[in-house]
Amino acid sequence: MLAVKIAGVGCYLPARRVTNADLESAWSLEPGWIERVAGVYERRYATSETTVSMAAAASRAALAMAGIDVAAVEAIVGASTAPQQAIPCTAALVQRELMAPDGASACFDINATCLSFLFALQHASHLIAAGVYRTVLIFSSELGSRSLNPQEPESAVLFGDAAAAVVVTRAAQNEPSAVGPALFRTYSSGAELTTVAGGGTLHAPNDPTTTPEMNLFHMDGPGVFKRAVRVVTPF
Amino acid sequence: MLAVKIAGVGCYLPARRVTNADLESAWSLEPGWIERVAGVYERRYATSETTVSMAAAASRAALAMAGIDVAAVEAIVGASTAPQQAIPCTAALVQRELMAPDGASACFDINATCLSFLFALQHASHLIAAGVYRTVLIFSSELGSRSLNPQEPESAVLFGDAAAAVVVTRAAQNEPSAVGPALFRTYSSGAELTTVAGGGTLHAPNDPTTTPEMNLFHMDGPGVFKRAVRVVTPF
Repeated sequence: MLAVKIAGVGCYLPARRVTNADLESAWSLEPGWIERVAGVYERRYATSETTVSMAAAASRAALAMAGIDVAAVEAIVGASTAPQQAIPCTAALVQRELMAPDGASACFDINATCLSFLFALQHASHLIAAGVYRTVLIFSSELGSRSLNPQEPESAVLFGDAAAAVVVTRAAQNEPSAVGPALFRTYSSGAELTTVAGGGTLHAPNDPTTTPEMNLFHMDGPGVFKRAVRVVTPF
Repeated sequence: MLAVKIAGVGCYLPARRVTNADLESAWSLEPGWIERVAGVYERRYATSETTVSMAAAASRAALAMAGIDVAAVEAIVGASTAPQQAIPCTAALVQRELMAPDGASACFDINATCLSFLFALQHASHLIAAGVYRTVLIFSSELGSRSLNPQEPESAVLFGDAAAAVVVTRAAQNEPSAVGPALFRTYSSGAELTTVAGGGTLHAPNDPTTTPEMNLFHMDGPGVFKRAVRVVTPF
């Protein structure tokens, strides 16, 4: 166990609510289908928000809850599925958006798609326990609505936009807080089950062979479920 | 100091050599300009290689030098500037390309642009020292040639394609190897000096307002140099 704690949490939700009725109408789905199939009632879509602006709003809330000034943050970790732009990393842009002092923190992103936050928390906890950093800010900021594929409604109805952030610090000796051991395992035989084929070097944005569909989220939900059931039980 | 060592290193270079004369001819530059301005003689450009195939080739070489079977790798860390695709992370795709056993390793990417490898080495070292992993494979695989801007020859002549990888393990008590402390600081006031504006949520590939230029590398070299001189001296 590591003597580390989450000293504050914060989140940001865009104001724009998108109901199932909105999507069922826009995407010609049978009324009631989304709630029946996905169990989702509504989601938020960003309007003028960006990955960075949402991350900063969530981060400010987490810092306020922790009672920690942004100047005391020694590392800022982006733990989102998608960056704001290819260069620089999103964490560096959030440092600037938060008006954190230039050079006061190390900024980097960790990406393991949906598990990005959990890897980031593991890394931050170990780096704090080892004395590398005293205060680490981790954010996850997602603009999933930008890459939905209406032709694949079973995944497209699931995702919206939001951000969350935590402040991680060392726990005092008399505090019960601790971070326990984590175990991550990647089963890449399922790499094709959940993809955005574009957005990187293989189907780069300027490549004339890149189609718009390649830049959209694809998930074989039943395939993921079957794989997960088989893997999670022994795990 | 952490009792950790680099047990093997490997690299991969595409066969295709691109000389200064090639670029000076293609981009209408004065003969000799590149070597005079940049000090670069030639670079390699990938042909059929991908980010993942280059990463795997470098990784195989590093594992061979370390004398470690891929089945013993417990974490695979992607530490490149650009991913192969937006989802999943490049490390997961490299696990599959290496035919590493499904579920034997945790896969994630760390992104801090040019510093990705150094952050990854720091994290891997601390995680190994803490007993989380015994053997970590880190790769950096870059296809910079895919996002060069010939309109900005002073940066476009600098970059080519290649991959490198290292295997990091715990060092035995009698080994002199160790990883010392690292200090990273991000100066985000310079965030506009080196950018690829596209490739993320802000100027997404499918956004009709995204221009091809946004997906190309931009660097204000003199600006970076001036900033670096001011920052590095006190650092």
